[in-house]
Amino acid sequence: MSCPLCTGDGGLVVARTPQYRVVRVVEGDEARRFPAFYRLIWAAHVAEFSDLSAPERHACMDAVTAIEQVLRARLAPTKVNLATLGNVVPHLHWHVIARFDWDSHFPAPVWAAPQRDEVAGGAAARLAQPLAAVDAAIAQALSR
Amino acid sequence: MSCPLCTGDGGLVVARTPQYRVVRVVEGDEARRFPAFYRLIWAAHVAEFSDLSAPERHACMDAVTAIEQVLRARLAPTKVNLATLGNVVPHLHWHVIARFDWDSHFPAPVWAAPQRDEVAGGAAARLAQPLAAVDAAIAQALSR
Repeated sequence: MSCPLCTGDGGLVVARTPQYRVVRVVEGDEARRFPAFYRLIWAAHVAEFSDLSAPERHACMDAVTAIEQVLRARLAPTKVNLATLGNVVPHLHWHVIARFDWDSHFPAPVWAAPQRDEVAGGAAARLAQPLAAVDAAIAQALSR
Repeated sequence: MSCPLCTGDGGLVVARTPQYRVVRVVEGDEARRFPAFYRLIWAAHVAEFSDLSAPERHACMDAVTAIEQVLRARLAPTKVNLATLGNVVPHLHWHVIARFDWDSHFPAPVWAAPQRDEVAGGAAARLAQPLAAVDAAIAQALSR
């Protein structure tokens, strides 16, 4: 069975290294509801986090942390959510999601039922900065 | 406001170090639906993963990985799910959940809508080993 994260980018690519790429989710309900929704996608097709070696795991989480730090610095979210599930697409990827107390699902997980109406016209307009600036800051943080 | 993870254990404690404790979720819908559901709860009251220093982050994820490895070795889950959300209780804790293709929500996240009926009498009976054996293996793995 072909893996969609091996054959496609899985989002808008904002950074790429030999070990992983970082994409922003730009399609569908998730992008409209949670505009600062990034994914770190490991390059190699492995299913579980513990399939990585210790140095790979540390590099992976250092990068996830760098994304989180950019989201905090640029957008001051109420909370950052990190998760690797992979039940549907078992190719290691980390969700890094800026959550806001005004978003449609807060404080529920993004995968749960909505708690309130979505922001009219899309939630991106309520962010403190344009997403392009956040993308650029993530790319810069990961190039260090 | 008092923090429930500062004032209580947050589950059945299976391991404890100066930096964190590991608990198994033993109450409520989650424990019945997802019996191999563990949480690593950081001892210090910090909200975000990136509030930790780099050595703390590595120690935290090494422990999360050790839990995952025990779950894989003992229970052969279809997938392991890792997440730190903290929208409701902003005290750093990692969910480490063994998922099975027969569980009530698979392949959806545990926070989403169920996909099928729950296992009659509780899902723990379908696990390859008693949970007490898994608890003991986690305690041993984290004492190394």
